Amino acid sequence: MNLENAIRSVYDFPISGIDFKDITTLLKDRKAFRESIKQLAEISGYDIDIVVGMEARGFIFGAPLAYEIGAGFVPVRKPGKLPAETIHYEYSLEYGTDKLEMHKDAIKKGQKVLVVDDLLATGGTALATIKMIEKLGGIVEACLFLIELEDLHGRDELEGYKIESIIKY
Amino acid sequence: MNLENAIRSVYDFPISGIDFKDITTLLKDRKAFRESIKQLAEISGYDIDIVVGMEARGFIFGAPLAYEIGAGFVPVRKPGKLPAETIHYEYSLEYGTDKLEMHKDAIKKGQKVLVVDDLLATGGTALATIKMIEKLGGIVEACLFLIELEDLHGRDELEGYKIESIIKY
Repeated sequence: MNLENAIRSVYDFPISGIDFKDITTLLKDRKAFRESIKQLAEISGYDIDIVVGMEARGFIFGAPLAYEIGAGFVPVRKPGKLPAETIHYEYSLEYGTDKLEMHKDAIKKGQKVLVVDDLLATGGTALATIKMIEKLGGIVEACLFLIELEDLHGRDELEGYKIESIIKY
Repeated sequence: MNLENAIRSVYDFPISGIDFKDITTLLKDRKAFRESIKQLAEISGYDIDIVVGMEARGFIFGAPLAYEIGAGFVPVRKPGKLPAETIHYEYSLEYGTDKLEMHKDAIKKGQKVLVVDDLLATGGTALATIKMIEKLGGIVEACLFLIELEDLHGRDELEGYKIESIIKY
């Protein structure tokens, strides 16, 4: 099944000139959604303890993948959303900075971790997530994405890590 | 397996006096997470076309449930996040209002729909979601929650709909 056919392009979202890859058409198609999780599971390797997904679309792929491969799920969230003690990582955007949080007790030392998101663009969010996982002593086995925008060179930002994606633009 | 043991209480979050039910301890426990999705699937009935989950924690339970029962998944989001044409529903909070959006083409007329969220409190978010689903011609078969805060009487707000929850406080 070619999952690319289930993705919709929405032009000029969120700003003019952007060709936004809309995954909601894939999600609502039961066969395409199921196939996307199966394909992520196939490239995820074995013996994973924790899948980490980034707010909010990363939850939509990360949580079913964790369920399918029998791992736990850890959410990475925007500031102020997680109730217990957190660690955070701040990273630069084109203008200004962004910040992500993870619970301090989310990952135990030595646990094998997958990072999962819907889209690999510049890699900033994934790198922030990797840094937090490693600060807690987790081992990042791979980063999995449904979609990769190759022109934005997210792979270079994540050099040294295993990067897998299903649909490349 | 008693899933209640996997939930953590965090006091005074997000504001003083609140006993916040933290699901992240359940999520990171692979057995408890798996069991929570299995139990939601058991009470979900058969022949469901679409699972609708609300941003953001509703994605964490709704997406794996859709995967498990072979349904499509539709996200309900905060304003400005969905790229294509949307419908919206505005509802009252204690102070001010809140607004949720769904893609106009998310649900086809006559499709059988489950509403899924982590927590049933006052029921405002679930009711907003039901209104949007029905506006699109979908049939709300049931609303499923991992946790129900019975003192807040969300069930009364959702009268006439089938409401199921796994853990009651």
